Formats: sequence, structure tokens, C-alpha cells
Amino acid sequence: MENQFPIDHLGIAVSSLEGALHFYRDQLGLTVTQRETVAGERVNVAMLATGESRIELLEPTETDSVIGKFLEKHGPGLHHVSLRVPNLEATVERLRAAGSRILNEPRLGAGGHRYVFVHPASTGGVLLELVEAHS
Amino acid sequence: MENQFPIDHLGIAVSSLEGALHFYRDQLGLTVTQRETVAGERVNVAMLATGESRIELLEPTETDSVIGKFLEKHGPGLHHVSLRVPNLEATVERLRAAGSRILNEPRLGAGGHRYVFVHPASTGGVLLELVEAHS
Repeated sequence: MENQFPIDHLGIAVSSLEGALHFYRDQLGLTVTQRETVAGERVNVAMLATGESRIELLEPTETDSVIGKFLEKHGPGLHHVSLRVPNLEATVERLRAAGSRILNEPRLGAGGHRYVFVHPASTGGVLLELVEAHS
Repeated sequence: MENQFPIDHLGIAVSSLEGALHFYRDQLGLTVTQRETVAGERVNVAMLATGESRIELLEPTETDSVIGKFLEKHGPGLHHVSLRVPNLEATVERLRAAGSRILNEPRLGAGGHRYVFVHPASTGGVLLELVEAHS
């Protein structure tokens, strides 16, 4: 069988959630499936449905948060790409063995999914999140 | 019904297709579904399967091509996000009416799909391709 790890979501850093929703929701017509503030990461989040994937709009609540600093350095744009993988530990082990830079030990994120981030230097310039698919 | 325009593909600009495939194919285990050189755009392309979407790795064949210039300015990374929309003309009309910057008239691309690009200034910093879904 082919390995087809689906795209879980794209994380897009924006300075204004309402401004971005004006485009993605009001003009393009995507459906907002979730709104929340993630206090630990100091972001306001809006999730948009795109087939089996989602677009996650990330607005910082403070300028010195991860997303706030990203915006200051790069301006708005793609922050990370997230793929669902069936077995996170085995994948991380394989990547590490091949010399890829894993940025954290597997840990629990929103929705109870375990994830790691892979450094852009290993992935062609994209901050890549790997989320364990629930089987 | 919800509007759920699926992600068609992510276009990632890389300096070396083989280097990027070493990560995405050999380490991560994604399946390469297509390899081609698109002479008109002066790129070598490798397509990787990710569920209903694809990752499109783009390696310039010349430094003064669109992707070559992108690499020189930004380094490797996400070049564009492509969403499938059911009715391209109606979508473009709606976006234009709301003031979004459409970069070209709908035209035929690879695989016979019609597409437009939307300027990052309108989309939260992401070069957004809209591809007409075949119904």
C-alpha cells in the first residue's frame, strides 16, 4: 500500500484573525469549524475546513509569543505544515537515524494528539509538524 | 452543505530535488507519484502523495526562472498553496468584487485544470492558487 500521510493542517500566521477571515470565510466561502484562544501558546485560532485537512489561522495575543515573533521577523504567511503519520515513534526514530533535526520529544497537543516538529533545514525550508494519526 | 475546498497541493521550492526527496521519500516514506520537467516554467517537479492532496517539490532548471528567483530571494520553502474550488469563474468574480488581487485570468495548467493565483497581500501572506475541481 502506498504511504499517503494526509495533510492534517496548514498553520498560517496572521496579524488579524478578522482580516484573514474576511478573505477565507467571507470571500472564498470556507467554513469556520472552530474558534479558540490557546493561552499556553498565546494565540487566537480559527480553523477552516478544507476537505480532509484544515487551515489554522494563528493570531498572536502578545507580540513576544512564538507567532508574534514570527510575524515581526517574516510578516504574515505559512508558519507550519502538519502531516498525519500512523506511528510517530517509529517515524521519529527513522528521521533521527537519517540525521534529520527533530525539535522536540513527542508530546501531547490540542485534541490529545501526539506530535513533533521537524526543523526546516531538514525538510526543504518548511517547518513540518508530524501528528500521530488516531488509528 | 459545508464548503470544503480540498487542498489540491502545496508547492515547495527546493534547490535540490534529490536532497528534498532524501527527506520526504526516503526518510518520511511518502510515495513519489510523478516526476517531470515543465519546460515552460523551467522546473523539475516531483509529486508526493499526501492523502487527497499532494506535495509538489519544485527545483528550478535555471536561476532566472520564477522558482529560481524565489529561491535566491527567500531560500527554500513553501512557494504556494493550491485549493480546489468548484466554480472558478464565480469564485474569481466574488473575490474581485471584494477587492482581492487576482494575479491572472483563469488559464489552463498541467492536467487540463483551469487556475488563477491570488496575491499574498489578500490571503494572509500566502500565494494562493485556486484550481477548478473537475465535477
